[in-house]
Amino acid sequence: MVHNEGASPRGQTGRGLFIAFEGGDGVGKTTQVELLSKHLRAHGRDVVVTREPGGSRIGKEVRSILLDGGDLDARAEALLFAADRADHVASLIRPALNRGAVVVTDRYTDSSIAYQGVGRELGVEQVAALSEFATLGLKPDLTIVLDLDADERRRRMESLGRYDRIEREPDHVHARIRRAFLDLAAAEPERYVIVDASRPVEQIAAAVAQAVERVN
Amino acid sequence: MVHNEGASPRGQTGRGLFIAFEGGDGVGKTTQVELLSKHLRAHGRDVVVTREPGGSRIGKEVRSILLDGGDLDARAEALLFAADRADHVASLIRPALNRGAVVVTDRYTDSSIAYQGVGRELGVEQVAALSEFATLGLKPDLTIVLDLDADERRRRMESLGRYDRIEREPDHVHARIRRAFLDLAAAEPERYVIVDASRPVEQIAAAVAQAVERVN
Repeated sequence: MVHNEGASPRGQTGRGLFIAFEGGDGVGKTTQVELLSKHLRAHGRDVVVTREPGGSRIGKEVRSILLDGGDLDARAEALLFAADRADHVASLIRPALNRGAVVVTDRYTDSSIAYQGVGRELGVEQVAALSEFATLGLKPDLTIVLDLDADERRRRMESLGRYDRIEREPDHVHARIRRAFLDLAAAEPERYVIVDASRPVEQIAAAVAQAVERVN
Repeated sequence: MVHNEGASPRGQTGRGLFIAFEGGDGVGKTTQVELLSKHLRAHGRDVVVTREPGGSRIGKEVRSILLDGGDLDARAEALLFAADRADHVASLIRPALNRGAVVVTDRYTDSSIAYQGVGRELGVEQVAALSEFATLGLKPDLTIVLDLDADERRRRMESLGRYDRIEREPDHVHARIRRAFLDLAAAEPERYVIVDASRPVEQIAAAVAQAVERVN
């Protein structure tokens, strides 16, 4: 049908499917990104797995500035995340979506809103505007928020020994960050699913696969 | 006087004086920054000379991404310049102004507006908004635009052998960038001076010193 030429069922993300995992540190995003990718590949899909910060061409350099930045100015940090995202979208995410791939990213815009906008108190709207500028408004078809309460999160982080600069935030900051992800999900329920990340890995993976099935 | 405690004659820039040099590549900013600094130091002023990109703590890394970035996405580039600026203002410019120093910077916000906003067509307002976010609205007390017509500029650039990625723009792009600087100056005449940069170096330096005298 000529009038449909170039149009896409989802509009923004071309012929592909764009899935983001979000949530605090230690909720199990990396594991679930891996399991979902395996699941989709087993079903014959072309899957591109990526992450922020660091999935872009300039990402390694940006990530190294961010993680080693000492007391880096909060605004500089937010702008670096946005620069990384702009390059990530332009050089990797959009091309992959345009050829029809499924893109699965470990963190995207919502992490900036939660960590810089809320956690570092730069403001949700201002940080969202940076991402809007960076991505030309590209949003995931589905954002999966892995949600974990504070006690369980701390237990996991300690057992993993993960304490780099960003992850060393105190518990009350993490409580606000967790709330930020839940608020974003509540504002756009059709584009989000919240998954209880305290359950066994396989149960989480099944819930994620089911949610992806619905948008696929 | 108690009611004046902490107040400043200029408000934004504390007790110091904030001077920015702007203009296209090859107009002689580096030379004039040096001559003005020498002049002010000879008059007993505490002068901090800096530049963008690269004057911040994260600046070397940001500058290396920017200059070696190949076909770096325009939005990523604009966000990197803004990140560099945020760190520059927070870690160097504000502290220097607060202790009463004169800060002389080779490029600031206007270069982003001219090169990314106009040259790379990202939009003046959008790029200005990134700088506003990055600097919390800190503006120079005086911006000196060194202005050179296209023929003279090309002649100088060739004689200097300066052709890195950013400076390799064609002439019509540079004409629009030149116009952008002049438009910014025209919009806020009380905060700008335009200096004809085709004159001998000493005459330019005298015009610059005179302009600084008026705001000092």
